[in-house]
Amino acid sequence: MLKDLILKNRSYRRFHEEERLSASLLEAWVELARLSASGRNAQSLKYILVTERDLCQQVFPLLGWAGYLKDWAGPEPGERPAAYLVMLNDRDISTNYYCDDGIAAQSILLGAVESGYGGCIIASVQRTRLRELFSLDERFDIIQVLALGRPAEKVVLEDMKGDDFKYWRDSDDVHHVPKRPLSELILRR
Amino acid sequence: MLKDLILKNRSYRRFHEEERLSASLLEAWVELARLSASGRNAQSLKYILVTERDLCQQVFPLLGWAGYLKDWAGPEPGERPAAYLVMLNDRDISTNYYCDDGIAAQSILLGAVESGYGGCIIASVQRTRLRELFSLDERFDIIQVLALGRPAEKVVLEDMKGDDFKYWRDSDDVHHVPKRPLSELILRR
Repeated sequence: MLKDLILKNRSYRRFHEEERLSASLLEAWVELARLSASGRNAQSLKYILVTERDLCQQVFPLLGWAGYLKDWAGPEPGERPAAYLVMLNDRDISTNYYCDDGIAAQSILLGAVESGYGGCIIASVQRTRLRELFSLDERFDIIQVLALGRPAEKVVLEDMKGDDFKYWRDSDDVHHVPKRPLSELILRR
Repeated sequence: MLKDLILKNRSYRRFHEEERLSASLLEAWVELARLSASGRNAQSLKYILVTERDLCQQVFPLLGWAGYLKDWAGPEPGERPAAYLVMLNDRDISTNYYCDDGIAAQSILLGAVESGYGGCIIASVQRTRLRELFSLDERFDIIQVLALGRPAEKVVLEDMKGDDFKYWRDSDDVHHVPKRPLSELILRR
């Protein structure tokens, strides 16, 4: 059922790094994004698949990790992502990609979770340096990076108390994500 | 399987209008969006649920339909959406909702498809008039509207030929959506 998949699809930031992901696995997830809706059907999103260990090590330091966890600089060696998908917009096709980025990210991550993997959408990206790393043509904007792998952390949802929406990590290393109640999301029915 | 659901989740613009949708059905789909990822976990998206026939009739003329179909002004009475979800951003929480709009729309529409319904993301909205209709506070931005119902049209995907990404409708009233090949979407693997 979709709800089970959505519940399992948490933002994972620690992985079993030794378990590598094949490019064809990532391709299957991009295929899910390809088959999803696109604003004006322009389909301007493009992807760079990063699976090689060396390249993953070069992408890693260009990403910002879990801004709210001030004592945590990001995953340690051994628990870092085993692959990345760099999501781009091809401005030669369209400068406005509407909400295609979220649609595509959701399709890809749900696909990853269905296969037993998971990931995290990272918008905190050193774009200039990432652009250099891939000698990226100017027509491509870097939208975001999806970090992927076999999750190695426990993430739990909890009811949000008050206005504090910051996620946090407890002493047992469990990652807690406060969610607003449904009643707060629905203005009128 | 997720892929089947994604394949079924086409942008539907004609519906069995007589088959009404309950507010609790729409709530179950918003719940899927609530449980999905949110940038910085801020969760600033809010929703107006529109199910009453009268209100649907007031929302309908404020929406733009299928820009590429020049001979078609939108669904006729009887085939119009049976419900709408108006997606808002609450600026009191955050002015930047990252790609939450696409994530939420995809979760909601996949949920609708799983229940035998479907819909379409509409970004062409007369926002000022829609704002008036619901006496919407200034803190809310209208992001987009999801039109919902039991689909009453056939939508098929096809390989895109050349650069023409416009969807079209054939003489049998089937809606065709050209999709770029996967090889075009992947710059590097």
